[in-house]
Amino acid sequence: MPFGFELSKKCKESQARRGRITTSRGVIETPAFMPVGTQATVKAIAPRDLKELGSRIILANTYHLYLRPGMGVISEAGGLHKFMSWDGAILTDSGGFQIFSLQGLRDISEEGVKFKSHIDGSSHFFTPEKVVEIQHILGSDIIMPLDECLPYPSDYEYAKYSLARTNRWAMRSIEFHKNSGKWHEQALFGIVQGGMFNDLRVESVKALIEMDFPGYSIGGLSVGEPKEIMHQVLDYTTPLLPADKPRYLMGVGKPEDFFECIQRGIDMFDCVLPTRIARNGTVLTWKGKIVLKNSQYKNDFKPIDENCQCYTCRNFTRAYLRHLFIADEILGAYLATYHNLFFLERLLERIRASIDDDRFINFKEDFLNRISLR
Amino acid sequence: MPFGFELSKKCKESQARRGRITTSRGVIETPAFMPVGTQATVKAIAPRDLKELGSRIILANTYHLYLRPGMGVISEAGGLHKFMSWDGAILTDSGGFQIFSLQGLRDISEEGVKFKSHIDGSSHFFTPEKVVEIQHILGSDIIMPLDECLPYPSDYEYAKYSLARTNRWAMRSIEFHKNSGKWHEQALFGIVQGGMFNDLRVESVKALIEMDFPGYSIGGLSVGEPKEIMHQVLDYTTPLLPADKPRYLMGVGKPEDFFECIQRGIDMFDCVLPTRIARNGTVLTWKGKIVLKNSQYKNDFKPIDENCQCYTCRNFTRAYLRHLFIADEILGAYLATYHNLFFLERLLERIRASIDDDRFINFKEDFLNRISLR
Repeated sequence: MPFGFELSKKCKESQARRGRITTSRGVIETPAFMPVGTQATVKAIAPRDLKELGSRIILANTYHLYLRPGMGVISEAGGLHKFMSWDGAILTDSGGFQIFSLQGLRDISEEGVKFKSHIDGSSHFFTPEKVVEIQHILGSDIIMPLDECLPYPSDYEYAKYSLARTNRWAMRSIEFHKNSGKWHEQALFGIVQGGMFNDLRVESVKALIEMDFPGYSIGGLSVGEPKEIMHQVLDYTTPLLPADKPRYLMGVGKPEDFFECIQRGIDMFDCVLPTRIARNGTVLTWKGKIVLKNSQYKNDFKPIDENCQCYTCRNFTRAYLRHLFIADEILGAYLATYHNLFFLERLLERIRASIDDDRFINFKEDFLNRISLR
Repeated sequence: MPFGFELSKKCKESQARRGRITTSRGVIETPAFMPVGTQATVKAIAPRDLKELGSRIILANTYHLYLRPGMGVISEAGGLHKFMSWDGAILTDSGGFQIFSLQGLRDISEEGVKFKSHIDGSSHFFTPEKVVEIQHILGSDIIMPLDECLPYPSDYEYAKYSLARTNRWAMRSIEFHKNSGKWHEQALFGIVQGGMFNDLRVESVKALIEMDFPGYSIGGLSVGEPKEIMHQVLDYTTPLLPADKPRYLMGVGKPEDFFECIQRGIDMFDCVLPTRIARNGTVLTWKGKIVLKNSQYKNDFKPIDENCQCYTCRNFTRAYLRHLFIADEILGAYLATYHNLFFLERLLERIRASIDDDRFINFKEDFLNRISLR
C-alpha cells in the first residue's frame, strides 16, 4: 500500500488536526509520537513490548546505521525491519543533524559532506543521493533528505547561504528518489530549515512546496533556542504548509511540547528524551515528572502513576523501582522505558480524542495545570 | 500448602533422580535450575519473562537485600515476593558465602559474624538467629542457615574447627526457626560443609541428618577447586543424604555440570554464570557456547540456536545480536539472558525426561559429545 495521509478533523480554536498516515506497514493515527531507535533498537526495550504498548512507528538513524553495523549487514538481513524484527513502520532521519553536530570532524561542499566517524575516525562522504540510496537499503517507510542543520544562534548570511544549498540538496534527493523507482514505496519528506529567521523559513517552505513532497519535516528547532522562538517559528511556518500533507517536528517530544506544537499544526514527533530520562530513573506521570532515585520514594508503595495501566504500573511500586535504580539494575531501565513510552502513547491517544471531540484547548489547559501543580 | 518433596524415579545406572518439590507458590519438578536474582531481580529480565520461559523458582540473597533496600522496605512491601512482583517460589541464600568473601572486612566468633557493608562500609552483626529472622521478613519459600563457607584450599584443622561451629549454628537456626512458628511456611535447609575433606563432609552430613532438615544444601563447592575434587566430594556426600529429601548444590550450574552432578544425586542448582555471560554476549546452544561479539557472526543470519523456540531465537539473528553487543545496547543483555535461561529450562526438561525414560546416561553422553564438537 502506498504512503498516504488523510486529514479527518481540524480544531476550531487552533491549528491542531487529526489525521492518519497509511503505510504498507500499518496505519498511524496522528498526532503521533515516534520512539527513537537510533541504532536499530529502541534502547532497553524489545519490539514486542513496543507493539504491546501501542507504538506504530519508530525512528532510526541513517548516519548511525551506515557506520554500524554497516549497509552490508542490513542489506543481507533484508532491510532494517527484518534486521531488528520490527514489522511496524520506520522513519529514518538522514543523519544531517548528527553529521553537523560533529564539530571539526566534517567538511561541507556543494557536492555533499565529508565527515569522520565518531566510532573509529574513518572518513566518509555523504551526498544527497547517497543518503537516499542508504535509506533504500534500510527500507524505511518514511525517509529524509540530507540537510544542513544549523546551530543556535546562527549568522543570517550563513543561514541564507546554507538554506539555498539544503534546498538544492532536497531537489537532488527528490530526483534521485523518483528515478530509483522507490517513490511509492518509501515516502521522502522535505525538511524545512532556515534557522530562527522567519523570512528564511518562509523561503524554505515555498521552495519545498514547489518540489511537492508527500510530507514535510520541520528541522533545526529544539537546538538550544528559547521555547518562544521555537513557537514563533512554528507560528510562521506551519500555516504555509499544505494542509493535506503530514508535518513532522524533528527532535521534539516532551509532554508539554506536544500541546504547544500540536496547537500550531504539527502531526508527528520524535524525541530521545522520554527514553533517555527513563534510563536514569525519571518517569512521566499525569501530575508531572518523578525522579525515582529521590529518597522520598524509598517507602512509597504506589505505582509510578495510579492512573496508568502499563505493565510496570500494574506490577511494581516506586519503592521497588527506586531500589533497582539505586542498585544499578538493568531491569529499572526496562521498566521505566516501558512506562514512559506507554504514558506518551496514552497521552497522544487522549490528545487525539480531544481534537475529535472539539475540546483540545480545554484538555491542554487541564493537563498543563496538573503537571505544574507538583 | 506446606513444603514437600516426592521422589518419582531413580536412574538405574547412576544416582540421578526425578522428583517434585511442593511449595505454597507452586510445584517445582526436579532436577531444577534456579536463576539468580541477588538484588530482588534476575538481572536484565522481567518477572513475566521468567514465567514465560518456564522458571518456577528463583534465588535471592539475604546479605544483599538486608543491606539494600533493607528490611524496613521489604517488610512494608509485604515481603520479597510482593516487592519484586514474583509469585513463583523463592529460595534465599543466607549470605554466608558473600560475608566470608569479604576478606578483612569480617570478624567471626561463636556468636556470629561482624562485617562491613561492601556498599557503604557500615558495620553489621549477623547471628544464625538474625539470618533466619531476616528470611522470615523476606518470606522466601526455602531458606538457608548462616554457615561459614571456606575458600579453596583450606587448612584441615581450621576446616574441622569451622565445621563444628557451622553445625552449632545450624542447630541454633533450626531451634529459632521452629520456635518462630514458621517451620511449615518456610523450609529451612541444612548446609553440608567440610571443605574438600571427605571425613569432614561425612561428619557434616551426619550432624545435619540428626537435626532432620526438610532439605539439604551442599555448600563450599565450586570455590576454585578442580572439577574432579568437586565430583569426589559429591561421590562421598550425596549417597549419605536421606533419599526422601531434596539436595541443592549451591553455586553450580553450567550445562556440563548439570549432568555430572545430577548423576551424583543432585536435585537443585543455582548459578550466576548463565545470566552473567549473557550480559557479555555469550550464549548457550545445543552445540556449545557462542561468543556473539566474534567477527564470524557479523553476517550470520541464523538464530543463536536453530533448535531453540525462545523469543530471541524466533525473532533475532546472531548478526543483530552481535550488533547490539558491539553497539553497547541494553537490549542485547535482555535477549541473551532470555535465551540462556530458556535454554537451561529446556535442558533440564530434557534431562528430567531422560531420567523418566531410563536414558539419562545416554543423553548425557550425547549432549557432552555434541558440545565438545565445536
